[in-house]
Amino acid sequence: MSTTSWYVTGMTCGHCVAAVTKELTAVDGVESVDVALVPQGESTVTVTSESPLAESTVRTAIDEAGYDLVGATP
Amino acid sequence: MSTTSWYVTGMTCGHCVAAVTKELTAVDGVESVDVALVPQGESTVTVTSESPLAESTVRTAIDEAGYDLVGATP
Repeated sequence: MSTTSWYVTGMTCGHCVAAVTKELTAVDGVESVDVALVPQGESTVTVTSESPLAESTVRTAIDEAGYDLVGATP
Repeated sequence: MSTTSWYVTGMTCGHCVAAVTKELTAVDGVESVDVALVPQGESTVTVTSESPLAESTVRTAIDEAGYDLVGATP
């Protein structure tokens, strides 16, 4: 099992959280998604998956939801 | 036909616009809904209906969508 947190901008409300969660949950191997919403800044999106996800995979899912992946947490 | 604009707070993104539009469009007699989104302030929600709507009717719909009606435009 692998858990990684990502910084995402542009999320402002519960609908945004739902959209990102839905898109990431649909990624193969993803077990759970947790979002700490920071409306005026960088929200933290924590993804637990069977094996580590490529950043490009996560970036694509977040982009499809309409938001921007700006980095991974240290 | 009657058109009235209302000030609504708490809306931050396109999902919020969609939620308010959907809720108001479902109100009997409503023909169209237009939203000018102001994420950090009062968004303007313009409703066109067959006959004037009671403020309580509009307030209930906006409340059900999860936002706050704070007044009507002058």
